[in-house]
Amino acid sequence: ATMALGYWRAGRARDQAEFELYFRRCPFGGAFALAAGLRDCVRFLRNLPPAGHVQFLASVLPSDTDPAFFEHLRTLDCSGVTVRALPEGSLAFPSVPLLQVSGPLLVVQLLETPLLCLVSYASLIATNAARLRLIAGPTKRLLEMGLRRAQGPDGGLTASTYSYLGGFDGSSNVLAGQLRGVPLAGTLAHSFVTSFSGAEVPPDPMLAPAASQGPRVDLAACVEAWLETRPHRGERAAFVAYALAFPRAFQGLLDTYSVQRSGLPNFLAVALALGDGDLLQQAQEIRRVFRTVSAQFQMPWLESVPIAVSNNIDEEELARLAQEGSEVNVIGIGTTVVTCPRQPSLGCVYKLVSVGGQPRMKLTEDPEKQTLPGSKAAFRLLGSDGSLLMDVLQLAEEPPPQPGQELRVWPRGAREACVVRPAHVEPLLRLCIQQGQLCGPLPSLAESRAFAQLSLGRLNPEHKRLEQPAPYQVALSDELQALVDRLSTGGSS
Amino acid sequence: ATMALGYWRAGRARDQAEFELYFRRCPFGGAFALAAGLRDCVRFLRNLPPAGHVQFLASVLPSDTDPAFFEHLRTLDCSGVTVRALPEGSLAFPSVPLLQVSGPLLVVQLLETPLLCLVSYASLIATNAARLRLIAGPTKRLLEMGLRRAQGPDGGLTASTYSYLGGFDGSSNVLAGQLRGVPLAGTLAHSFVTSFSGAEVPPDPMLAPAASQGPRVDLAACVEAWLETRPHRGERAAFVAYALAFPRAFQGLLDTYSVQRSGLPNFLAVALALGDGDLLQQAQEIRRVFRTVSAQFQMPWLESVPIAVSNNIDEEELARLAQEGSEVNVIGIGTTVVTCPRQPSLGCVYKLVSVGGQPRMKLTEDPEKQTLPGSKAAFRLLGSDGSLLMDVLQLAEEPPPQPGQELRVWPRGAREACVVRPAHVEPLLRLCIQQGQLCGPLPSLAESRAFAQLSLGRLNPEHKRLEQPAPYQVALSDELQALVDRLSTGGSS
Repeated sequence: ATMALGYWRAGRARDQAEFELYFRRCPFGGAFALAAGLRDCVRFLRNLPPAGHVQFLASVLPSDTDPAFFEHLRTLDCSGVTVRALPEGSLAFPSVPLLQVSGPLLVVQLLETPLLCLVSYASLIATNAARLRLIAGPTKRLLEMGLRRAQGPDGGLTASTYSYLGGFDGSSNVLAGQLRGVPLAGTLAHSFVTSFSGAEVPPDPMLAPAASQGPRVDLAACVEAWLETRPHRGERAAFVAYALAFPRAFQGLLDTYSVQRSGLPNFLAVALALGDGDLLQQAQEIRRVFRTVSAQFQMPWLESVPIAVSNNIDEEELARLAQEGSEVNVIGIGTTVVTCPRQPSLGCVYKLVSVGGQPRMKLTEDPEKQTLPGSKAAFRLLGSDGSLLMDVLQLAEEPPPQPGQELRVWPRGAREACVVRPAHVEPLLRLCIQQGQLCGPLPSLAESRAFAQLSLGRLNPEHKRLEQPAPYQVALSDELQALVDRLSTGGSS
Repeated sequence: ATMALGYWRAGRARDQAEFELYFRRCPFGGAFALAAGLRDCVRFLRNLPPAGHVQFLASVLPSDTDPAFFEHLRTLDCSGVTVRALPEGSLAFPSVPLLQVSGPLLVVQLLETPLLCLVSYASLIATNAARLRLIAGPTKRLLEMGLRRAQGPDGGLTASTYSYLGGFDGSSNVLAGQLRGVPLAGTLAHSFVTSFSGAEVPPDPMLAPAASQGPRVDLAACVEAWLETRPHRGERAAFVAYALAFPRAFQGLLDTYSVQRSGLPNFLAVALALGDGDLLQQAQEIRRVFRTVSAQFQMPWLESVPIAVSNNIDEEELARLAQEGSEVNVIGIGTTVVTCPRQPSLGCVYKLVSVGGQPRMKLTEDPEKQTLPGSKAAFRLLGSDGSLLMDVLQLAEEPPPQPGQELRVWPRGAREACVVRPAHVEPLLRLCIQQGQLCGPLPSLAESRAFAQLSLGRLNPEHKRLEQPAPYQVALSDELQALVDRLSTGGSS
């Protein structure tokens, strides 16, 4: 707001300016990110300006501030704002804009913090979820269960939404289901279990049969019939003895006394005790029990009952749970997906690249913090097999790269140009909002989720490696590199 | 919601239950936390139930769900809910409840996730801010500037609010000023600077004088007068030569040619180049320039112009900037305070401790995850000098500890009881909401901030150390320990 007053006082509030929102380094030590958050940006931009803010600003800015400034603020809206963006679920790489925002200088400057807030965390979460999906493989069901660990309630909503976009299967956050259409899935809390002493009598213990038209059954009584006497102590001692001898190949003989009343509960107790504290092993023991019981009682469905686990699961533990032979089917992840403990912030920036049609550049001693000047276009170059070669940034007025033709480009971080001949060329940035008007319907969340998996599928495995991946190249066109060089050496723009 | 249906089907929705919200370990490897988030919990509870949720739930739960369940949900409100809480800004320790929530089982179970979300992050941020304040010392101005790095917009609002509570001086988040009364402070972005080429003409270059009734001045022209010619190259070469010889004791002789036009800019350029890349050193050089100019032009105010820095400042860099002799006055911190990278989640839990007046306990193989059963009271025992000795948890019906009398307690994690004789005893939990009604006005944010600093002042330095502190003791009364032992060994409650 103080800068807004500065622009206004300088008579520059309506100068046409363009900003780019991008990140400088991929998160989590990886070589890719997923672009996300655009749908929240669109929602935000269409609901500007928030009522009541101007009055508040007037109360905190110096009392001799020209009242005409506040009059100007009251007239602000996004009708002059144009946004180009990487579609949600696109692969994103350092320096390639996730958003290009142009419009009156004062307005687009005011958008800096909200847009950074909306894009950075959404993209971080989607990228984190995509990494966890890569670790888990395609078949495990991954559930986000982290609302209680989120940094603020709408942080939780963002996390549920964009972890789904990044490759999770659903969330326990009911609001994300209601507001964003994320598939819902829930489990029990320990408090539900400990709240029962066993003496409770349900008001209606009768349950209608699932499939047939048969009579209702007393569920509590049926359960009691399975477990109505104490399991046989001798049998249990025998199982324990066998398990002590063969802890990795434990098996039970269930029908010595009574399968329901003694053999099965004793077998369960011993099998589960063997797996204590290790989710992977517990899942294996439980599956073995399910198989045994399934065979014993001719209940084939029991064999494949999904086993769900959750307990502070991080990338390493997820890899263990997803390994070959794991009997875990559903994995609930909270803190690790929602708070991104390995890197809790993507660190996007929002930088001025042109004003009044003139390119602008931030010069600094730290080369990584230099900005790329000018209004730009971005292209993804692909090989003949459809795999990604590199991204190229160029000035908006340059002709796009042509498939099959050689192109000289300057890879970021290299000192030499190189020549590339793409088989296919894809423009990266789509016009999303033109002069305040949405240009077309956004894809649904499920469509963006599918697009993210499709995009990842085209990325070479060397860039998808989670540790020490090969960096993916982003390069500048000849003309853009020349502009950078000219402005760096103090030439006027 | 699935559990709610479970309780309802079991006829237990209205059973009286009590939950406790607490954490198991202090964050960031420290030995204390600050309780925070209560004001957001109160706001949340008073605005229940959110409209439209029941209809949505009906659309996602199985279609044969009894419609009477949804009727029950529509009647829910917090009129039966009672909350006791640690006042905001209190010191909080492991196992000591931040909230005690009692009421109908179904309702208080539904509150689990929202209350965890609201308390955990607020307390984490307040604790993080308190640690950064301890590092910075009492005089530096600490500003929170992390909205753009927050995990969601209301995460940003929470961060601004509770970093202020924990000891920061203000925030750049305008909404936190408007909605929560947090003092505001802002700076410039690089885009503001790069947006000017220098050719712009302000529509009104005239500025009224600050103090007197004198004529308006043309500010741009005055500035040009200070810098209208190129500084003398020979003079600059001389300064560079001197600086090369005395890089840690650089000084300039400014009036060889012209102080304004040559001596000062040359001196500045060399002094600042010396400090390149290091905020502490840059601040020292800038202060030296301010002092020199202040003396040269008899402008005493210039000497003490506050110097503000911000650039990815973490705990270590903050310690450097706050060291003896630092010329930095204002420190802006973003990512480090807002996302808590060292531990992005406090990991609070919300556990059932009694239902229908009977204590409940979660037994588990992991002793750290066992819960403490029963409705409880909590007391802080103090020595004769007002410093904190330990916190004691006991059953609600026990008489409170008496000052000056010996008390036998069971420190958590120890196997033996010990005897303590407190000089003072403070009850920790205050009745905050009784049967849905707020019991009195909450303290203002500024009052809670002052209370937090007061609370920290009474904690022994050994517990305040940020690395490897001595743990602060939390102990159980004889009766509570006996109940734990009875329930642990399978005795019925």
